[in-house]
Amino acid sequence: MNTLKTRRTIRRYRLDDIAPEILNDLLESACRTSTVGNMQTYSVVITRDAIRKAALMPPHFNQPMVQQAPVVLTFCIDLHRFSRWCELRKAVPGYNNLQWFVTGAIDTLLAAQTFCVAAEEAGLGICYLGTTTYNPQPIIDVLQLPALVFPITTITVGYPDEQPEQPDRLPLEAIVHQETYHNYTAEDINRLYAYKESLAENKQFVLDNQKETLAQVFTDVRYKKSDNEFFSEALLKALKAQGF
Amino acid sequence: MNTLKTRRTIRRYRLDDIAPEILNDLLESACRTSTVGNMQTYSVVITRDAIRKAALMPPHFNQPMVQQAPVVLTFCIDLHRFSRWCELRKAVPGYNNLQWFVTGAIDTLLAAQTFCVAAEEAGLGICYLGTTTYNPQPIIDVLQLPALVFPITTITVGYPDEQPEQPDRLPLEAIVHQETYHNYTAEDINRLYAYKESLAENKQFVLDNQKETLAQVFTDVRYKKSDNEFFSEALLKALKAQGF
Repeated sequence: MNTLKTRRTIRRYRLDDIAPEILNDLLESACRTSTVGNMQTYSVVITRDAIRKAALMPPHFNQPMVQQAPVVLTFCIDLHRFSRWCELRKAVPGYNNLQWFVTGAIDTLLAAQTFCVAAEEAGLGICYLGTTTYNPQPIIDVLQLPALVFPITTITVGYPDEQPEQPDRLPLEAIVHQETYHNYTAEDINRLYAYKESLAENKQFVLDNQKETLAQVFTDVRYKKSDNEFFSEALLKALKAQGF
Repeated sequence: MNTLKTRRTIRRYRLDDIAPEILNDLLESACRTSTVGNMQTYSVVITRDAIRKAALMPPHFNQPMVQQAPVVLTFCIDLHRFSRWCELRKAVPGYNNLQWFVTGAIDTLLAAQTFCVAAEEAGLGICYLGTTTYNPQPIIDVLQLPALVFPITTITVGYPDEQPEQPDRLPLEAIVHQETYHNYTAEDINRLYAYKESLAENKQFVLDNQKETLAQVFTDVRYKKSDNEFFSEALLKALKAQGF
């Protein structure tokens, strides 16, 4: 399981396709992941068709992986299938609410990550697209998702055509808390973020964006408060439209 | 990676402790998981202390694993640490909204699942506690989580003291959709749920609960609409209280 520690996201893929039997095998592994009440409240939509990939490009802010990867997987929370089973079995489902949006998201994301681990072990490269929850409505439209089905993450998959450097991570001390949450003093933050801030690429990033600090690149350029609020509204609207 | 396909949830553990260096090693693997903007918007609270485990028991509906497991890990969405860094770097964070609750949940759950895969490869057994989002407020209180930190899942971990049967799963055909979502006809549902409904344990489950169908055990006993709505309210309230 060395892969877990040496992995990195892959954004450029060879032209080779992924054989359906390989993809199915990886998805079988994903389906062994823990799931609340063994309800498996998720679905996976496989996109291979170039025209449909093109339609998915704008909601994913035209990230080139969407068109370049042989396979795009949209992992969706799915309370529709389970509810349909209930309705056909004289049972009244009650899963159109926030709790089951979140419970479904947990099921879905855990299965997605098992898929990625299995894919990387099989020599494939993956990239998560966080844009999925920024523009859920056009994705819902393209994939024709019914009520109680919601796209929560998208993964592009293919055989790697690049070997990028592994990105930095915060020291484990930044992430782990013993018994209770330890709050961070200014000294803690300085120490824990020192390595990240010292990296040449991050210093360049600050310069390129004409900012004073790396944090400002995040707050003023990459993930701005006004954008975050705009996309929160869009997400809430889509959630309601899908019946949650 | 045979583990992925042969795994099963473990709810009974040997008394053996988990060495801190082993736990840290698994958490290091978890931290290599993909994360939006390399922001790592999560924290992990480790509970080993018996008194604190006892305090976590009621919010987890007294599931015995919480007290019996040597280690309980609460995986938390954490926008607090990142925001604190911003504030100390003349940057104005804007992550107190729904989009970043969901983005943080994605980061957190993917890391949690990598932890579980690594733990199982190392011979440990794990159990996810879905109760985390049912009773977030008492968990927040016990673990002293500040604003913008939110418990999204809990994992009990230990060396297995049982070897249960692997549970059934729906056929892959039930989960996977080619290009667009295929809706389910009544015949589809009958076929896809036939195996699950045929299992002796599930038939017994229906009898024990004096129900007519397996689906009714879910809707009338295990995950009732009224409970789901009650827990949705509690979740929303806790989300707002934590500043999202």
